[in-house]
Amino acid sequence: MKYFNADDIKQMHHLYRINLINSCTGYKSANLIGTKDKNGNSNVAVFSSVTHMGSNPGLIGFFTRPTTVIRHTYENIKETGYFTINHINSSIIEDAHHTSAKYAKTVSEFDTTKLSEIYKNDFFAPFVDGCKVQLALSFLEEYHIKANDTILVVGQIEGLYVDNTALVKDGFIDLSTINSATINGLDAYAVPQKNTRLEYQRPKAGYKTRDEK
Amino acid sequence: MKYFNADDIKQMHHLYRINLINSCTGYKSANLIGTKDKNGNSNVAVFSSVTHMGSNPGLIGFFTRPTTVIRHTYENIKETGYFTINHINSSIIEDAHHTSAKYAKTVSEFDTTKLSEIYKNDFFAPFVDGCKVQLALSFLEEYHIKANDTILVVGQIEGLYVDNTALVKDGFIDLSTINSATINGLDAYAVPQKNTRLEYQRPKAGYKTRDEK
Repeated sequence: MKYFNADDIKQMHHLYRINLINSCTGYKSANLIGTKDKNGNSNVAVFSSVTHMGSNPGLIGFFTRPTTVIRHTYENIKETGYFTINHINSSIIEDAHHTSAKYAKTVSEFDTTKLSEIYKNDFFAPFVDGCKVQLALSFLEEYHIKANDTILVVGQIEGLYVDNTALVKDGFIDLSTINSATINGLDAYAVPQKNTRLEYQRPKAGYKTRDEK
Repeated sequence: MKYFNADDIKQMHHLYRINLINSCTGYKSANLIGTKDKNGNSNVAVFSSVTHMGSNPGLIGFFTRPTTVIRHTYENIKETGYFTINHINSSIIEDAHHTSAKYAKTVSEFDTTKLSEIYKNDFFAPFVDGCKVQLALSFLEEYHIKANDTILVVGQIEGLYVDNTALVKDGFIDLSTINSATINGLDAYAVPQKNTRLEYQRPKAGYKTRDEK
């Protein structure tokens, strides 16, 4: 195995470092976040840091750096209080990735790509039409991460649309049936073909369980 | 599409809700976090919330609920300051998933599964032997998430081991070459077979860029 210590990581070329460190956490979620500012300019941007934070209430977090290309998303969320999360699938990977280009705030990525915005149930922020899982979220909290001056944005799920094909009887969404993508590093996309569900795990016989004193 | 509003989500059976909400963010990272307490009891537990937070310095975050099964990981990190992150691959999925069983703190999941602990370069916390990507981390910060009483743990990368097969010339780790797994929901594992890397994206001609006034 190749070993990098903290000093190697600090000294390496910055492009090598962002490829390496962005790949080293494993596969990432592949989502488009849809927003609109108060003047009606819509925005859609690819994010790989959308993370489940809790189910009751349904809370979702993502990390953003206020000073980079993806700041429009953050600004719109703070200005209006609403955003959507839309799963990237195999048919829109190229257009989804293109939303990372640095357009002016008055340019909507819905105009520069084949992605289409759609409004549903009077929700303020735009959904991405055709996505098989779409979430409507309200801004709930934010945390400033001191270590690197990023922000954790926490949203609460106000609505959830799921393609019927993917929805299993017990609430599980089988992402492999709707060709959901996953992100590897900064710029690679994969589409897993098959899931294997495993049983709920209990301690094996002969070992102390958490509740035994 | 099936639509759930906030009230539906609140009212649904709790097992249906945890399956649904855990699946709705898309694919998740599949990692084992290795720790050891000050008495030398080692621990390893599966986590699906490990997230890239920044590359310079290399920062990794994960969410934990201090009062659930995975509290041993959190307690050990707070007590000792160190932990490891190890990618789950296709050959250890069943054992990795079994680490979610609720064992007593004095029971090491390295004893109840075929997973083996290994110590390298004098790092305090155990790595999972055979994992193709292994990270050594020091505890850096934590944030209490008020909305649902969870904790975001932030670690800094002190060392990184990567299988030579997966390491590409520009620092990209091609997870598909080492059969890295990804998690769908609470209990499903998938192993993507192929990645497609896309180019760095620039605005298309005729549209204003971010830097134009």
